[in-house]
Amino acid sequence: MSSAEPVAAIAPEPGARFREEIREQPHALLRLLERESEFARVGAEMRARGAATIRMVGHGSSDNAASYGVYAFGLLPGWTALRDSISLTVYYGAQLDMSGCTALALSQSGRTPDVVEYARRAKSRGAYVVAITNDPSSELADVADAVLELRAGPELAVAATKTYTNQLAALGLLAAHTTADGAVFGDEVRAVAAAMPQLILSLESRIANVALPFAYAGRMFVVGRGAEFATAREIALKLLETCRIAAEPLTATDLAHGPIAAIDSLFPVWAIASDDATLPAVVEAVERAREAGATVVASGNAADAIPGADYVLPSPPASPLLAPLLSILPGQLFAGALARARGLDPDTPRGLSKVTLAR
Amino acid sequence: MSSAEPVAAIAPEPGARFREEIREQPHALLRLLERESEFARVGAEMRARGAATIRMVGHGSSDNAASYGVYAFGLLPGWTALRDSISLTVYYGAQLDMSGCTALALSQSGRTPDVVEYARRAKSRGAYVVAITNDPSSELADVADAVLELRAGPELAVAATKTYTNQLAALGLLAAHTTADGAVFGDEVRAVAAAMPQLILSLESRIANVALPFAYAGRMFVVGRGAEFATAREIALKLLETCRIAAEPLTATDLAHGPIAAIDSLFPVWAIASDDATLPAVVEAVERAREAGATVVASGNAADAIPGADYVLPSPPASPLLAPLLSILPGQLFAGALARARGLDPDTPRGLSKVTLAR
Repeated sequence: MSSAEPVAAIAPEPGARFREEIREQPHALLRLLERESEFARVGAEMRARGAATIRMVGHGSSDNAASYGVYAFGLLPGWTALRDSISLTVYYGAQLDMSGCTALALSQSGRTPDVVEYARRAKSRGAYVVAITNDPSSELADVADAVLELRAGPELAVAATKTYTNQLAALGLLAAHTTADGAVFGDEVRAVAAAMPQLILSLESRIANVALPFAYAGRMFVVGRGAEFATAREIALKLLETCRIAAEPLTATDLAHGPIAAIDSLFPVWAIASDDATLPAVVEAVERAREAGATVVASGNAADAIPGADYVLPSPPASPLLAPLLSILPGQLFAGALARARGLDPDTPRGLSKVTLAR
Repeated sequence: MSSAEPVAAIAPEPGARFREEIREQPHALLRLLERESEFARVGAEMRARGAATIRMVGHGSSDNAASYGVYAFGLLPGWTALRDSISLTVYYGAQLDMSGCTALALSQSGRTPDVVEYARRAKSRGAYVVAITNDPSSELADVADAVLELRAGPELAVAATKTYTNQLAALGLLAAHTTADGAVFGDEVRAVAAAMPQLILSLESRIANVALPFAYAGRMFVVGRGAEFATAREIALKLLETCRIAAEPLTATDLAHGPIAAIDSLFPVWAIASDDATLPAVVEAVERAREAGATVVASGNAADAIPGADYVLPSPPASPLLAPLLSILPGQLFAGALARARGLDPDTPRGLSKVTLAR
């Protein structure tokens, strides 16, 4: 036995946790679905209370998941969902009437201070407060009227992966269970979970070769629209925190309203293309970026529809609300591979801790 | 008469229009206020209809102004205002019930295609639709139930300045005129306009020296919170479109949730500090950025409260809803000076046109 082995057992190779947690995502989704009845119960309660304006709060990946919630509630029950301003309520003490509202407080740890404080104040202003958290014994869970547990299991890498996908599924399930179609959506998530291992395997076999050409990139735009804007935001965040790339998420249309001026051949663009009504806007934005000289990575289930992409990372067909569960995978795996190529450890980005207690 | 003079008259020096339009902002604000009665009329109509959920749409600077609208309506009438998803309504055709809503459609030109289409659909779903535009004869104005004219005058530089500040004032005025305090807010905007020329003059005398050290910067974070998040977004957009810097706006708390990992001594941070309840969060975020090695530019009316800032660009005291009208000025002037230092013309950024017809 070589003396190196015990050391290796204590300190896993850089990125091992991040990679394992990416692989665990289909299993984490199935664990969430074991408690589907909880989503049905809370969804029915929202409907019974008429709490049909959805105020979502969270930071980082949780806030990215909230971008998805806008579409889940907008497309399934046809309700208005918004990413609420925490500052307005917590810092400025605005006297908003939140009756007729459900406040969805998203925090993996359940300990993010201003999310907990928001939940407390939203409750006092008349909102029905639901905590969506990985820790059902957290302070956030304690404050809330109802708790939906993410059941992702312990997440050890600092950069979120399986808690993000479970947050998407939780928001979609809850939105679906405010209608009569909750069970259908649950089955669709099961089908997505079943498709994940093969996609992960095939991506893992080629992602290092796609990531390596970006080893010296300092900045990137990540473009998505509609439900995939959440994916754009989450991929940009993974690139920022694990690869230290200044990656900015943009909607396809916003790219044309200014940021396009910054693009040149050293400013790559990642585009998430979904086979839905938003596709023409994404195609048009990528065409402009290519004219400006950008290297283009195309992902999503309509990646093949992006003309002239330099790298194509397609995901299997899925409806607009299921697609983001799959289209995040190339971004996570790319970030992990690129971090390694840059000599960084995606498990422990500098300056971050797993539970962020910053104001 | 030298032969050079007619040429100079035809092709103004790079950035001349951008600079002139920055200087024109106080006058543009006073022109807006000449029609204050229109804001009173529309504000009263919103209240009479009970259209107290405010859905705002726009792209680029217009969307940045909408971030301010969240606070204007939240703090003055205590109403919920959201930056609505255009995709949800225009691309996905979601069947949202918009009765009880005012839709504020923001477009300088009044021709942004998906904003016009959103306005049309919002009207058919029961919203009271108000166009806020520089062109009262535009298609957007034609679609809307009511029009609030920006009266900024022709804006020739591609990067918006005076139309942005007039959008902020328009949103603040409208929010104030849904309450009994509309006239008070109007007077406060007049006082801000009166303070602007001196601030512009004093910034102009020193901004080139502050901008020059950033001549080779490729990326930057711009941090603000609360009402100043709009300013952070707008400064980041000016840096992107006129200086080609990958500048990303972040709330103070979001910086700690991931992006902080990307900061090093070559990744500067611009912080907008306002003397209100959000200040401790901004101070804490900047302290973390400084620990990571960032060069720090501090602006806003509490710029002096940012410990250890490398450059300080303070603005005069103002309440949270007036401060953003002043704190945008250092960002605009810095962008203009830095563009010149980089050999770029802020009047005509590459790849952009004044009216964006992109989907």
